Amino acid sequence: MKLSELGEFGLINLIRTISARYEKPGRTPWQGVLVGIGDDAAAWQGNNRIQLATTDTLVQDIHFDLDIINWEELGWKALAVNLSDIAAMGGIPKYALLSLALPSELDVEDISKFTNSMMHLAREFGVVIIGGDVAAAPNVVITVTIIGCSKGKAILKRSTASSGEQIAVTGQLGLSAAGLEMFKGKTIPDPEIRNIMRRAHLQPLPRVKEGQILIEQGVKTAIDISDGLTADLAHICESSEVNAKIKIEQVPVHPVVTSNFSNYQELALSGGEDYELIFTADEATIARTKQCLNCPVTVIGDITEKKLPTRVTIVDGKGNIIPYKKGGWEHFENGVPEVKFA
Amino acid sequence: MKLSELGEFGLINLIRTISARYEKPGRTPWQGVLVGIGDDAAAWQGNNRIQLATTDTLVQDIHFDLDIINWEELGWKALAVNLSDIAAMGGIPKYALLSLALPSELDVEDISKFTNSMMHLAREFGVVIIGGDVAAAPNVVITVTIIGCSKGKAILKRSTASSGEQIAVTGQLGLSAAGLEMFKGKTIPDPEIRNIMRRAHLQPLPRVKEGQILIEQGVKTAIDISDGLTADLAHICESSEVNAKIKIEQVPVHPVVTSNFSNYQELALSGGEDYELIFTADEATIARTKQCLNCPVTVIGDITEKKLPTRVTIVDGKGNIIPYKKGGWEHFENGVPEVKFA
Repeated sequence: MKLSELGEFGLINLIRTISARYEKPGRTPWQGVLVGIGDDAAAWQGNNRIQLATTDTLVQDIHFDLDIINWEELGWKALAVNLSDIAAMGGIPKYALLSLALPSELDVEDISKFTNSMMHLAREFGVVIIGGDVAAAPNVVITVTIIGCSKGKAILKRSTASSGEQIAVTGQLGLSAAGLEMFKGKTIPDPEIRNIMRRAHLQPLPRVKEGQILIEQGVKTAIDISDGLTADLAHICESSEVNAKIKIEQVPVHPVVTSNFSNYQELALSGGEDYELIFTADEATIARTKQCLNCPVTVIGDITEKKLPTRVTIVDGKGNIIPYKKGGWEHFENGVPEVKFA
Repeated sequence: MKLSELGEFGLINLIRTISARYEKPGRTPWQGVLVGIGDDAAAWQGNNRIQLATTDTLVQDIHFDLDIINWEELGWKALAVNLSDIAAMGGIPKYALLSLALPSELDVEDISKFTNSMMHLAREFGVVIIGGDVAAAPNVVITVTIIGCSKGKAILKRSTASSGEQIAVTGQLGLSAAGLEMFKGKTIPDPEIRNIMRRAHLQPLPRVKEGQILIEQGVKTAIDISDGLTADLAHICESSEVNAKIKIEQVPVHPVVTSNFSNYQELALSGGEDYELIFTADEATIARTKQCLNCPVTVIGDITEKKLPTRVTIVDGKGNIIPYKKGGWEHFENGVPEVKFA
């Protein structure tokens, strides 16, 4: 079988399955592991706090296009997407390792811009880049690893959602995917709007502080939106063995997207790379959390019992199910996000 | 300036310089950092032990050739080279993150072989693969990150060598580089010898236990041989601001290399990827360490005061200096290890 048939999540499952074969219950190395393969970050028990580690690779022409993104933005984004994974665990990012595979003909000035921008963002979030690796390569591949820890005794996981909980999301969605549409040729006349969209797509701001506040308010379940709202919510559902129902009219679409894109709902549901947080909790906890967060928080639906094979159901204002084809970014299977509304 | 002019170590220095600009003395995030950019692994103070993290990227057609290495060997090697960095700090490897950038047309069976082999080696060394990332890419890029800790209160560093110390090396050198020569076309008739050379180059065994014993015996300074004996010893000299003198006749060349390669000294001095440990200490400490290690330990020279700009001087049995051109693997500058003896 080709990797293209197995798909990204099939591959992750394969690695997880093989890994489990080498696990012996009670064996020392596994004892402290709290969260292994399949969440935003791995977690293990430290002396006082829970330790976290996450890694993300950006590959030229797959994750980014050097004709679109500049080196400052690339340095920012490579770190930001990893910070977002720590945010989705409610953790504190502390140390980062930077692995750079680079073509020899690159301009050193560009690498300087890249590094300065990454260090700038690192400092903003109290992160120190303590090591890494550099190597020659035919195309640019950037891997950032972040090591962090929990703020208190708890972390946010994907596997703890339960039936009856509300589903909420921070911020407004679709702007990053709209930015990608713009880069692909969609005309946006207003330079200020263009700039907002560019920034959303190329310099996302991870919700690190917000993740920590979720924990403080008793939220247990969260994920960040990288693959897309429905795809990432489906990850929570798979891990927690529940289903989810989203009311499409409640999904907070960024006004710039609503104004400029007829497919704004698609962009918000499946565009991905919003780096907002999806979280689930009981109504009172979500109401309390909303009070504490300095960003929009919108309840978009509910966690339900696992009845249907479809993990995430989308309904309109009248409760009618809106069919949609698989949404969200997936590596290997589809080269571009593939979402079709019936 | 092009990256090819700056070179691998110039790039590392550039990143380190930029990083230092963002460091504010006494700022919390930096307080716990014991070893930053420029050693085998980064180190920071945990509650009891020193925490370690290291990352290494293997790029197809730069670090490995899929016409030579099979997928089991690749899975092994990608983890082994990182374990060797933890060995060079005298640490205990604990957790690993695996980031895979892979072409969609790859066979899933090959990825299974890769993963099984890596998990097997991980289990041998008590390491759990707790997370990672997968992505589509035009060529195979593998990044492994290992997180570990010190066994006691100390770690091995590059920066602690001092004048008057002896330089010692574990094992026998040159076999990995000899293996590479074989893959490039050198005829080795004996299949058993071929197999020994293949294994040395493609499935190195990191000296993790040996690194821990060095610490226990009071050794403070070590590095693993990845770039090559002289190049890696030069890294110790740069970090410690000392020079080194190697007696070429004392360098332990693997007998298979001596028997089959006329350039055996060159292979042992500059071939690289031996994944043995170079360490420095006073004579008594080295003698004691030799007693405790279950592998050959050979004293090959001395650390001297920094007098000459040449970090590492090689002398023959009569004490005459043997001139050599820059040795050891360096990314960006030279595509292949470049060593010339005058």
